[in-house]
Amino acid sequence: MTDMNEYIATHTDELVESLAAFVRIPSISADMAYADDCRSAANWVAELLDVDGCEVTVHDTRGHPIVVGRHHAGDDAPTVMIYGHYDVQPEGDLSEWTTPPFEPTIREGAIFGRGVADDKGQILAHVHALRHVLREQGTCGVNVIMVVEGEEETASDTLADFLREHADTLACDAVVISDTCQLGPGRPAITYGTKGLVYKQIDVRGPATDLHSGSYGGAVVNPANALATILAGLKDVDNRVAVDGFYDAVVAPDQFELQAEQALPFDEQAFRASVGVDETDGEKGYTTRQRQWLRPTLDVNGLLAGYTGEGSKTVLPARAMAKVSMRLVPDQDPQVISEAFDATVRRLTPPGVQVQITTLGTARPYVAPLGWSAIESARQVIGQVWGVEPAMIREGGTLPILPMFREVLGAESLLIGLAMPDCRAHGPDEYFRIDDYLKGMAMSAKLLLNIGQALRDGDAG
Amino acid sequence: MTDMNEYIATHTDELVESLAAFVRIPSISADMAYADDCRSAANWVAELLDVDGCEVTVHDTRGHPIVVGRHHAGDDAPTVMIYGHYDVQPEGDLSEWTTPPFEPTIREGAIFGRGVADDKGQILAHVHALRHVLREQGTCGVNVIMVVEGEEETASDTLADFLREHADTLACDAVVISDTCQLGPGRPAITYGTKGLVYKQIDVRGPATDLHSGSYGGAVVNPANALATILAGLKDVDNRVAVDGFYDAVVAPDQFELQAEQALPFDEQAFRASVGVDETDGEKGYTTRQRQWLRPTLDVNGLLAGYTGEGSKTVLPARAMAKVSMRLVPDQDPQVISEAFDATVRRLTPPGVQVQITTLGTARPYVAPLGWSAIESARQVIGQVWGVEPAMIREGGTLPILPMFREVLGAESLLIGLAMPDCRAHGPDEYFRIDDYLKGMAMSAKLLLNIGQALRDGDAG
Repeated sequence: MTDMNEYIATHTDELVESLAAFVRIPSISADMAYADDCRSAANWVAELLDVDGCEVTVHDTRGHPIVVGRHHAGDDAPTVMIYGHYDVQPEGDLSEWTTPPFEPTIREGAIFGRGVADDKGQILAHVHALRHVLREQGTCGVNVIMVVEGEEETASDTLADFLREHADTLACDAVVISDTCQLGPGRPAITYGTKGLVYKQIDVRGPATDLHSGSYGGAVVNPANALATILAGLKDVDNRVAVDGFYDAVVAPDQFELQAEQALPFDEQAFRASVGVDETDGEKGYTTRQRQWLRPTLDVNGLLAGYTGEGSKTVLPARAMAKVSMRLVPDQDPQVISEAFDATVRRLTPPGVQVQITTLGTARPYVAPLGWSAIESARQVIGQVWGVEPAMIREGGTLPILPMFREVLGAESLLIGLAMPDCRAHGPDEYFRIDDYLKGMAMSAKLLLNIGQALRDGDAG
Repeated sequence: MTDMNEYIATHTDELVESLAAFVRIPSISADMAYADDCRSAANWVAELLDVDGCEVTVHDTRGHPIVVGRHHAGDDAPTVMIYGHYDVQPEGDLSEWTTPPFEPTIREGAIFGRGVADDKGQILAHVHALRHVLREQGTCGVNVIMVVEGEEETASDTLADFLREHADTLACDAVVISDTCQLGPGRPAITYGTKGLVYKQIDVRGPATDLHSGSYGGAVVNPANALATILAGLKDVDNRVAVDGFYDAVVAPDQFELQAEQALPFDEQAFRASVGVDETDGEKGYTTRQRQWLRPTLDVNGLLAGYTGEGSKTVLPARAMAKVSMRLVPDQDPQVISEAFDATVRRLTPPGVQVQITTLGTARPYVAPLGWSAIESARQVIGQVWGVEPAMIREGGTLPILPMFREVLGAESLLIGLAMPDCRAHGPDEYFRIDDYLKGMAMSAKLLLNIGQALRDGDAG
């Protein structure tokens, strides 16, 4: 077959434009106003996968469609699933973007745009790799199921149903996912653990309507003050999460993990500079990266109450709203934490207001088996492409599908991160480096040609 | 002269339509997008005051214009200023209005619309009374200076400069103001005390941009969590304000005031029903109305951070904002409280974030002399029109102009409240009863004909 590196070198512009075209589709899954764009993104991916040797279907769900591309190498060949998502986060405050989120632009060797790192650029590297291998040699010696869904950013609710419904035809030996980060430039990472999630909305209701804060202040309980009291009560003075029983099920990282973490370089000053803070702080007794990778956390993701415009308005708001998410580590159970959160919020709610708590998403934490043959195969091909051993890391983000794949398909997941750690996924000026996009493609082609044997050897061993 | 009651009876529709026309002008002073509407409202008032015997000028300021109408009765006659404002609060959440805020509608004997009670209906009652008295008999035996300003809702900043600049020509013996409430239906009130105000905006800044709350949560201090901690720290467990030294200058109400307060009816159940809460709560050791009238308070007026739309977004926000106001009582000094607030907020700010505090308005508290002759005159004319002794009350709202009139013009203020206590000034469905509008007009005409003699007698006494 034509060498993948040669193909990439001679088709760079076309491959980059392909990613730009993907990013131009504003496939925001959280807002149903963008439902048509999500469908367009699904169809766009399906069209790209529609090559000889790959059978493509777009499955309707009660949410956004799921694209499945299948390559059958042989009944006895192992099966690898490549998973990614075409949906993206909302764009946030447009004024904070240097260039518009859905008009991708190239600056300093990177493409900027919403979703380019999370996950359009990363999944597209695998799509182009599979296309190339199939067009050049018709098969890759391993059965491939490419699954590209549209609700990863909203907790993959319909994917769960889809997996359960098609558990027999989606059975596989490994799931390959690129939706995480490198350790830093030129140092790809295999993420062997991600955090779980419980995402809540708290609505505090007081008087039936907004009131004059002069006439009623002090007399009627203010929902915004009440909300602040509730939120402040969710952390203690040591920045530990004060949800009742929050740490009860937390498994301390073992010695191997702690050593692996400490062996990897971490430049605290560079980290602070990259996010623009003078000082970092968090749960007492842990380093910055330990808090990121190994410790459960709680963050307020949104606040809204009363008057937020220019100048002053002396209003006692009728309602106050907060979005709050917790990240979980093994063996915290999202259902247990969810109930403990609700009970804690109710306990913290002062008299005179009503509180309503809505669960907007839950996911289990995940840690892969460390000695797994698929991880070994990935280490080799990454080493060949980047010339460096990948870092073995855990991270703070959540991939709800990892525990789901384990539970429904019985398959472990191999996470190969191609984005930069400061790629600003979910924030303004999200970016993905073109070099990583192209190297990811080369790595994926090699992996497709090697992982089958590794999985066979692993099975035999 | 034609009897005022007869005039009102034969011109009711015209007088009500006049108020509706006034309310239709969206003269929101806090938002400069409405500057032209503020000017329209000023010109509308000026045109109405332009009758024989009244000299009208519209004064430009660096903010919104101030309308002044002057009637000269004689060099030896006492002078009374009638003060009101044509500006209104922002409309807030449109979905909470039964009918649009700037399309006044009549329901159950009341006009609904933004600003109809605060203060368009109340000042218009005086304007129509003055028009009628001057047209019918050319003078009213007292010099009148009618001042209608456009920045009351944003702390009357330019009025202060205006008063100082024209202190000689605005000199007066009393200021009459209707911008407060009755005790309840059919029970007008003379408000002899109002609270002061310190209004702040707190901006907490963390990372340079919004971050992924999974990758960075726990590692970087979250400005929204930090803001909740700060706000919660501004109250203690007894709902006392925890700003350092907040109560140091508070003068305890004297026995007369406490007895007057206790003598007036207060139906806690009806109060709760009127605002739509099951329970009231506030500073420990005080009743609901004591907290409203006599105790200083602190309220969060607005909150904004991160993602506030539909669904979930796992963002660690770069910024979090709160608007916070405090209501002050004698002898709390707004400047002292302002500085104490800033120091307290800085003390409560956790490491890892920056805080910026902006003062959006300050005003002193006010209590009028209780034995004042102008109050006695008002009690008489109110008794004649409503057939009931007015309630002597204090209230939680702020009129920054009261201490300003005292300081700059040396004049005390007489506050005659015509709106209902649940008129929803600053909230949705603000209303003003037509009966109170018309009775207020009759009362104002009588007061114009009687207050001159009362002020002469008071001076002599």
